[in-house]
Amino acid sequence: MSFDNNVPTTFPKLEPRGPGGPFLLAQERAKATFDPKELTSFMYGDEWLAKLDKVLNVITNEPTFDKTDRYFESREKKIATSYQHDRRFFELSKEHKWDETDKNIVNFLYDQSTPFSLHYGMFIPTLRSQTTDEQKKLFLEPALRHEIIGCYAQTELGHGSNVQGLETTATFIPETNEFEIHSPTLTSAKWWSGGLGTAANHAIVMARLITNGKDLGPHPFCVQIRSLKDHSPLPGITVGDIGPKFGFNSVDNGFVMFDHYRVPHVAFLSKYSKVTPGSGEYVKPPNAKLSYGTMVFVRANIVLGVRYAIARAATIAIRYSSVRQQFVDSANPKKWNNQVIETPVLDYTMQQYRLLPILASAYACFFTGSEMMRLYELNQAEMQKGNFGLLADLHASSSGLKSLTTTMAVDAIEDCRRACGGHGYSLFSGLGQFYQDYLPNVTWEGDNYILTQQTARYLLKTYRNVMAGKAVPSEHNHTISYLTHFLQNPQAKCPVKEANDFMNPETILTAFGFRAAYSIAQVADQLDNKGRSWNSMLVEIHRVSRAHCQFMLVRSFIVALQDATLSKEAKNVLRTLAVLFALNTMEKELSEFILSGYINAEQSTLLKQQVIHLLDVLRPQAVALVDAFALPDYYLHSALGRYDGDVYKAMTAMVEREPLNQTKVVSSYDACIKPLVHAGRRFNENGIYTAKL
Amino acid sequence: MSFDNNVPTTFPKLEPRGPGGPFLLAQERAKATFDPKELTSFMYGDEWLAKLDKVLNVITNEPTFDKTDRYFESREKKIATSYQHDRRFFELSKEHKWDETDKNIVNFLYDQSTPFSLHYGMFIPTLRSQTTDEQKKLFLEPALRHEIIGCYAQTELGHGSNVQGLETTATFIPETNEFEIHSPTLTSAKWWSGGLGTAANHAIVMARLITNGKDLGPHPFCVQIRSLKDHSPLPGITVGDIGPKFGFNSVDNGFVMFDHYRVPHVAFLSKYSKVTPGSGEYVKPPNAKLSYGTMVFVRANIVLGVRYAIARAATIAIRYSSVRQQFVDSANPKKWNNQVIETPVLDYTMQQYRLLPILASAYACFFTGSEMMRLYELNQAEMQKGNFGLLADLHASSSGLKSLTTTMAVDAIEDCRRACGGHGYSLFSGLGQFYQDYLPNVTWEGDNYILTQQTARYLLKTYRNVMAGKAVPSEHNHTISYLTHFLQNPQAKCPVKEANDFMNPETILTAFGFRAAYSIAQVADQLDNKGRSWNSMLVEIHRVSRAHCQFMLVRSFIVALQDATLSKEAKNVLRTLAVLFALNTMEKELSEFILSGYINAEQSTLLKQQVIHLLDVLRPQAVALVDAFALPDYYLHSALGRYDGDVYKAMTAMVEREPLNQTKVVSSYDACIKPLVHAGRRFNENGIYTAKL
Repeated sequence: MSFDNNVPTTFPKLEPRGPGGPFLLAQERAKATFDPKELTSFMYGDEWLAKLDKVLNVITNEPTFDKTDRYFESREKKIATSYQHDRRFFELSKEHKWDETDKNIVNFLYDQSTPFSLHYGMFIPTLRSQTTDEQKKLFLEPALRHEIIGCYAQTELGHGSNVQGLETTATFIPETNEFEIHSPTLTSAKWWSGGLGTAANHAIVMARLITNGKDLGPHPFCVQIRSLKDHSPLPGITVGDIGPKFGFNSVDNGFVMFDHYRVPHVAFLSKYSKVTPGSGEYVKPPNAKLSYGTMVFVRANIVLGVRYAIARAATIAIRYSSVRQQFVDSANPKKWNNQVIETPVLDYTMQQYRLLPILASAYACFFTGSEMMRLYELNQAEMQKGNFGLLADLHASSSGLKSLTTTMAVDAIEDCRRACGGHGYSLFSGLGQFYQDYLPNVTWEGDNYILTQQTARYLLKTYRNVMAGKAVPSEHNHTISYLTHFLQNPQAKCPVKEANDFMNPETILTAFGFRAAYSIAQVADQLDNKGRSWNSMLVEIHRVSRAHCQFMLVRSFIVALQDATLSKEAKNVLRTLAVLFALNTMEKELSEFILSGYINAEQSTLLKQQVIHLLDVLRPQAVALVDAFALPDYYLHSALGRYDGDVYKAMTAMVEREPLNQTKVVSSYDACIKPLVHAGRRFNENGIYTAKL
Repeated sequence: MSFDNNVPTTFPKLEPRGPGGPFLLAQERAKATFDPKELTSFMYGDEWLAKLDKVLNVITNEPTFDKTDRYFESREKKIATSYQHDRRFFELSKEHKWDETDKNIVNFLYDQSTPFSLHYGMFIPTLRSQTTDEQKKLFLEPALRHEIIGCYAQTELGHGSNVQGLETTATFIPETNEFEIHSPTLTSAKWWSGGLGTAANHAIVMARLITNGKDLGPHPFCVQIRSLKDHSPLPGITVGDIGPKFGFNSVDNGFVMFDHYRVPHVAFLSKYSKVTPGSGEYVKPPNAKLSYGTMVFVRANIVLGVRYAIARAATIAIRYSSVRQQFVDSANPKKWNNQVIETPVLDYTMQQYRLLPILASAYACFFTGSEMMRLYELNQAEMQKGNFGLLADLHASSSGLKSLTTTMAVDAIEDCRRACGGHGYSLFSGLGQFYQDYLPNVTWEGDNYILTQQTARYLLKTYRNVMAGKAVPSEHNHTISYLTHFLQNPQAKCPVKEANDFMNPETILTAFGFRAAYSIAQVADQLDNKGRSWNSMLVEIHRVSRAHCQFMLVRSFIVALQDATLSKEAKNVLRTLAVLFALNTMEKELSEFILSGYINAEQSTLLKQQVIHLLDVLRPQAVALVDAFALPDYYLHSALGRYDGDVYKAMTAMVEREPLNQTKVVSSYDACIKPLVHAGRRFNENGIYTAKL
């Protein structure tokens, strides 16, 4: 017998056992009491959706945007593919005259960072915000034309969150009007910068400015690192890729070290502080408060981005849980074609408990992100008028919310992956690589644990002000409001008498405000009256930030629905979802609510009952609620989460492309299997085992 | 200027900023009050440790056991490397006459499954336990010689935990005394079997036995699937690899479909049930209770294995947290060489709170696993005498503990990875691929959510028996004991008056028993008296199993220390660690303890204080406690977790091997960067940017 070793595997033309996914998802969609399209339009706006359709149509016809082989690519292949994508993206954006929104949608849909991502995401924005007009001509304009390609190098091998601890120096040399950039130790190597590994020829380098013998701490420099002629590292520069990561392997995160490397005076980004040529005199920056606005903007955007992350995970897990059937629920057996069939797993309370609160949190993050954006605009306008009164609260909330919501998102992605059972472990689920690539969000733009200290510091300060009568409630500062409310009656009790009383938004908000205020008061007491150190209180300090931010999430969700221009049906479902989000959060943090004295044991039991009840109420809306996020199949790239529910055929179609399946016999056979098997020689001409006893 | 493109990157010969890792770890080791070597010897036994040394010495000199390139390998490369490893492993085990323990240690150290792993792990054990003597000669003996290579095919594309729902059929054909194996639908494709993708020529196939028109449900068959002559799939067989996974990519998990595929009568594994040749009469298996013993054994082994997983993650994170410095703790500034230096992150309470309870849980799993093994042996002896009295409790506990401890382990690995900050995200941390490869433990040998239902069913049954006076406390059944205790006084209160009272082991155990019993009683009441359905109670049912298993973990840890032959110093530290484990667990589940009425608000506050206090007490022992697990650097394969603490040099040494760093210019340069940069042409002969204003 002979065979052709180059015939790929193809599956027999068989159908999955009925009822199939398309039938089950159609049933789910028929159950919903509201129109998901209405909600989609409400969330994104029709203009944005039209842009989505427009660019989706372009890129799904572009080979360098094709995702078919994404889950099969090695690191080397990922990098090569990404470069081709970068080049084509640049061409297409010119060809189709894409504006910033179009480009953002394209990047969102393509959903994989590249060696050029940080050129767009950090190099250009830094050049925009930190340069003089002269420097804009010199660096920003060629960067926009891609004549120079840059990255942002701040973190060092031995230094992350503590920017003041960076070691790289930039010493002013008055004789030549140059700066000498130098890496004094191994730990001072710049590390982790995306694009630095292979792509960038320039880098924004954060280095300690030293002039006239004084160390002025980290400042930004625009430094050429590779030749523009042939891309080789310049003399004095050691540069390369930092190696494989848990995810994000399409990006060439890199390192660079400087050996007494000279750059011209103009390399020092001088929008804010300056070094006078010749004398080397340092000129301090003006009030830095305006730059806090940018941090709020970046963090509010991350919170807004969280909705996609959570919605994407929920879309995949909820659609697949409607299709995947397991065991017969004997108390409530399902029938199809007159036969008892296995029960879709989403009918099991446990699966609902695992997934529906995650779905609710996607909406909570959507409304909270929008509210943060609104406050950001409001604050920008106020700051223009010289009023900095909103800034501190907004900065604190956005820091804490960045920390809380990105942690919620990574947990949600992984919980959804596990809720997909065995197939969640296949990369074809669309959840594995997604988890790996999303993870840096918990570290960048402020480490999630460090950030909460900033939030807590503000909350404690506000508490002391309220105590001292120096802060009064205002329309935009809900922190002062709930603290004032708490101090008026620190012995207040939750009025809930039956489970349904938990449906009252006022009751919910008061409970969250009370619990946040109580936690803040406790920490303040320990620090101010009991002599406890900040370090010994870090665990409680982290909880204080979380309590405040959970209040913000619940509040934004509830308040947004009061004015939303939505049909009664959609509003009803969202209101129930908001309550589920709130009560599930309360249940997860129950001990804190109980310890504050606000909720008692009987109420806690009612709360748990109400959560289970709401799962039942929302169960029929689940698929429509994920549909409303309108995440295209191209974006999801998941066999399990497809809109049509044809999961098993999608799975087998993807398996047929597995490289190992392109030949009938694995290449290691001759060396590693054949010698063992042939040692026995107990087979016939057809290779059939012939041993007899 | 020209350059050689084939010169790999090398780092300048610089030291990390002082004090370096080796100095800091030496300081840590000097702080410990006990000898970690004593603990190592106590945990593993000197005989096992000698074997470890012996095989470690062999394999660290073997090229196919080298891990240097592990984190750089693509899927294809991983498979090829694994085959070479499989072949060499087989040779070495003969050469060095490795016994089962030796082989287990080798596999533990090498720490990567291969295409042959399931041949050893499932194919051979199934042939041992499910075959007649005739079948042992026919299948087992050649399998041991690797003349046939097998796998285990149970799960189907559409069917996992519900084994009774499998679709593949094996119909007895009386005319030829054959079985016809058939895959009727796409969802009936066998899926996920390790080794099936490319390696196996035989598979144990679980198929519904149909004889004389009767469907008798799933039974095991030994089926040849590939030619022994040339390894091509046999006619009627569609077989291949299921594609890339989140982890475990060194294994060729595969699928197989059968098109009316005939196998001889002897293929039906007939140790228990039989089909009479000719007549096709089905002969039932005898009492299946004995096979429960095997499940207990497998699950107890998984619990015992959890200690390695958690200890490994804790070793890396705790050593690195002693070396990694961040910020100056202004209340307690550290000095070195007369300079203020940044504080090692392990000195921050938050980092201790994240890591020390994980370390404690590694020890808890060690003592619990050992206790499970002891009970397994005891039960096996009792069953031989016809006494099945221990079995149900042991089976229930081992199921719930498998679920709880493997979930604890995956969470611990990921928590430790995140606690390593940015570098935790580098694969060189040794935590990323480890997490991915460990994850299947939460699914296989019983899905962690499904398993807890089995445990809860037993607990509820026992509760009803105790209520009815039909079960009395016994030495080996602690479930009956805590239930009886609870029913004697369901209004009992925790006697703790000050934080230090929580150090009393009796107090802790009573609290855990009370809370478990209370949870069971509540669920029983809802099911038996309030008309709630099983499905609507699944969330609480899961909690009941967790409550019971947390009692078991705490109890095993505490009780084991009572009789342990250890020095006073080591015992003292372990006792404190046991209390930390218990109190931290109690804190995480605090709302349940409060709702049971046993713990009040004041005690909860004391509890939280005591946890923080214990972190402080155990802080100086942390590195010695991970050292005691004696996990070799070869096993850890982590730049951050090395015994010597020289993390930054290890990091750069690994980076130098990154394939992208073997050339000075990335291969995509010519096509994707050069055209953009050269469009500007603003550079001189040396490639230096020459733009002027």
